[in-house]
Amino acid sequence: MKQFLSVHDAPDLPALVAEGLVCKKNPFARKQLGIDKTLGLLFFNASLRTRLSTQRAAQNLGMDVIVMNVSQDSWGLEMLDGAVMDGDKAEHVKEAAAVVGQYCDIIGVRSFPGLADRDLDYRDEVIGQFVRYAGVPVISLESAIRHPLQSLTDLITIEEYKKTARPKVVLTWAPHVKALPQAVPNSFAEWMNRADVDFVITHPGGYELDKQFAGDARVTHNQREAFEGADFIYAKNWSSFTQYGQILSRDRNWTVNAEKMKLTNGAKFMHCLPVRRNVVVMDEVLDSPDSIVIQEAGNRVWAAQVVLKRMLEAL
Amino acid sequence: MKQFLSVHDAPDLPALVAEGLVCKKNPFARKQLGIDKTLGLLFFNASLRTRLSTQRAAQNLGMDVIVMNVSQDSWGLEMLDGAVMDGDKAEHVKEAAAVVGQYCDIIGVRSFPGLADRDLDYRDEVIGQFVRYAGVPVISLESAIRHPLQSLTDLITIEEYKKTARPKVVLTWAPHVKALPQAVPNSFAEWMNRADVDFVITHPGGYELDKQFAGDARVTHNQREAFEGADFIYAKNWSSFTQYGQILSRDRNWTVNAEKMKLTNGAKFMHCLPVRRNVVVMDEVLDSPDSIVIQEAGNRVWAAQVVLKRMLEAL
Amino acid sequence: MKQFLSVHDAPDLPALVAEGLVCKKNPFARKQLGIDKTLGLLFFNASLRTRLSTQRAAQNLGMDVIVMNVSQDSWGLEMLDGAVMDGDKAEHVKEAAAVVGQYCDIIGVRSFPGLADRDLDYRDEVIGQFVRYAGVPVISLESAIRHPLQSLTDLITIEEYKKTARPKVVLTWAPHVKALPQAVPNSFAEWMNRADVDFVITHPGGYELDKQFAGDARVTHNQREAFEGADFIYAKNWSSFTQYGQILSRDRNWTVNAEKMKLTNGAKFMHCLPVRRNVVVMDEVLDSPDSIVIQEAGNRVWAAQVVLKRMLEAL
Repeated sequence: MKQFLSVHDAPDLPALVAEGLVCKKNPFARKQLGIDKTLGLLFFNASLRTRLSTQRAAQNLGMDVIVMNVSQDSWGLEMLDGAVMDGDKAEHVKEAAAVVGQYCDIIGVRSFPGLADRDLDYRDEVIGQFVRYAGVPVISLESAIRHPLQSLTDLITIEEYKKTARPKVVLTWAPHVKALPQAVPNSFAEWMNRADVDFVITHPGGYELDKQFAGDARVTHNQREAFEGADFIYAKNWSSFTQYGQILSRDRNWTVNAEKMKLTNGAKFMHCLPVRRNVVVMDEVLDSPDSIVIQEAGNRVWAAQVVLKRMLEAL
Repeated sequence: MKQFLSVHDAPDLPALVAEGLVCKKNPFARKQLGIDKTLGLLFFNASLRTRLSTQRAAQNLGMDVIVMNVSQDSWGLEMLDGAVMDGDKAEHVKEAAAVVGQYCDIIGVRSFPGLADRDLDYRDEVIGQFVRYAGVPVISLESAIRHPLQSLTDLITIEEYKKTARPKVVLTWAPHVKALPQAVPNSFAEWMNRADVDFVITHPGGYELDKQFAGDARVTHNQREAFEGADFIYAKNWSSFTQYGQILSRDRNWTVNAEKMKLTNGAKFMHCLPVRRNVVVMDEVLDSPDSIVIQEAGNRVWAAQVVLKRMLEAL
Repeated sequence: MKQFLSVHDAPDLPALVAEGLVCKKNPFARKQLGIDKTLGLLFFNASLRTRLSTQRAAQNLGMDVIVMNVSQDSWGLEMLDGAVMDGDKAEHVKEAAAVVGQYCDIIGVRSFPGLADRDLDYRDEVIGQFVRYAGVPVISLESAIRHPLQSLTDLITIEEYKKTARPKVVLTWAPHVKALPQAVPNSFAEWMNRADVDFVITHPGGYELDKQFAGDARVTHNQREAFEGADFIYAKNWSSFTQYGQILSRDRNWTVNAEKMKLTNGAKFMHCLPVRRNVVVMDEVLDSPDSIVIQEAGNRVWAAQVVLKRMLEAL
């Protein structure tokens, strides 16, 4: 594996998922693989789960890890070719990426969208420029429009908990107080569309995802209908793609609760976390045995580990 | 050892202290013990000594360490059960603690009091909630009301430097420019009350510590009387417990100086650091051979190491 | 090696450079040397290259690394002897340095100048006080007036790329939008003056470096004349030493471009990075095969590694 930016870098999904579960069963089996190798993690935005799980995964493989928290204020990167850098950007990504590539064998990059300019965000420049200039394999730790380590985690978790060969998986929009990126739902849709699941998306009107991610997935504005017979409910808020970055609804009728969960086929409840309790989902669901959000978060390690393992093998 | 929050988690004080000194004599003897184990250190407040010494201790035991500096602003944790999280808190401690517990084998948490609401502070919620939800052993790296790693360090240091079987140990309040927590004196009192020492507390009126920590220790408002015949002078400022969080005195007559040290039995001077020179204590004391503050700080490693060692042995 | 603060700590330059290149050829050959040793890196100012490369170097040698980002706001250190610490400084450097020395076997310190008070900056107090009180070897990760790891890197890079026994090396001032320290040019001059090179400095009037660094190097205000026959062009902006900390010129006629590079003997272009593209140097130079700025940045690892290796050998 030479990069991990989207589902397109993982053509053999079932094999990748299976390999992730092998990592989980025996986390330290390949501890020699990463000896003398360094993973650099660059956070242009805050991170808890991604940082801890990726660091743990790398250490399980024997790698050294260097973490850099780079706020875009303190280390403003120029992205434009040909720019006359007489403003507040101190370094061009051409140098920044290439230099980090000199010190690290693999680089992970996290960078959020601004949610103001859709074209800019959807060019996904920060991660793209790192790929272009780093000279070493790059892992997305969530970019402006995708979160592939989360999606791989989700697929591993579904594989672990599914009770039928082809489970019904429902991605449901849920309300939130802030305008959030589309990265997680984009990525989840992109992965589910390629997995052996019956995938349905439900959200209020105006929350349609970009077609390149939603693909041919079934979409309904009727949340209850979507929940019927579901094996997995995956809740997530996102801001509008069409009216870019805007909050069109805070309707608590979309909050996931026990009564709606009863419509499902005893579905497991999933969320990438952090989650706003009693806004996105009620305590009664999150604190029930059907919630697997903590186990899901735990699986972040195995998603990161299988990706790092494949990259190390290909170095 | 399943948790380390207070002296109550260390029933065998003399054995624990002796074991700490064994670690000091041979720091790397148990380097296999922590292999494949990860310590997560979460700092809700700044830390120098605690962070460096605990990290060093873990590395001496072969552990991997992951450090997270989480300002309460950027990662506001909701502590209340049943909260409707539509404000500025992005994650509930139920999820946060459980998730960190998925990635780490042992968790250390530092969290200071607000010094505004005594009942709130003395419920010591942050550390308590992590214990409740993490699912792995938790170490206090200083909580709102206790600093047990500091107190264990102090006991180890007293054991090292004492010249009589039952030394006289004096905790003296000293002036400061800021309102400081009671965590260090609370904890020190709690530990000294259970150690084989003659323990005396001296402070101006109004600075009485909470009874659960002060216990039956002798208390005097006469600093000079307290110093007479002392083997150890332990200086520390704290804000008022009774008039909660307030500074009742900045009286420099309470500053520790050479003249007062002459009243003692050639006492060693201790302080947890950082210390305000010429406010808490005069240069003449801190720069004298009787000051053991640096050695005391050095012993932080062995306190952390013996606690981690016992936790690893019990995993 | 007991400290690494300037060229004066490296009397045998050719041997040190050669040893650095041996590290580069076989980075992990001495991985046993640093086992059970901890490097503490203290950043009073931001760092990318220095931090990553030094961390990597230490890990190549088997050391554990502890990184502390200490903004001078959050951990204000008192530097003055005898100070009555009733202001905003929470700790005296006497304690801070000694305490870090208790936890780490080697300490690296980065601290920038204020560029307001020349005498204060040129006393180089922060690093000096750490050397005085730490009790363990100290490495400068760039101080107020020198950047020795950068200079050693530069010498290693020149050794690698030189095509004649005694190459002509030109340090040229270049424009910038901000007032920058003199640390890099000071240090570069100090090292080049002791290396087997033909060294020339060129800058506009008013940008004369402190004589203790410039030494007897040839200085010209005619940039084109300086470039003639050069084997290496080393570009860098700095603020004025004589009119301390001021920007006397932003003249783009000093920007390095392809036309000027044609005056040289096919010179390699060097810069310590980060670099303002099309202000300090034009894209046409930076993107040409003659630019070795990325390779130069990569060599930061071997400079740090050879210094750490020598310190470890002397522990």
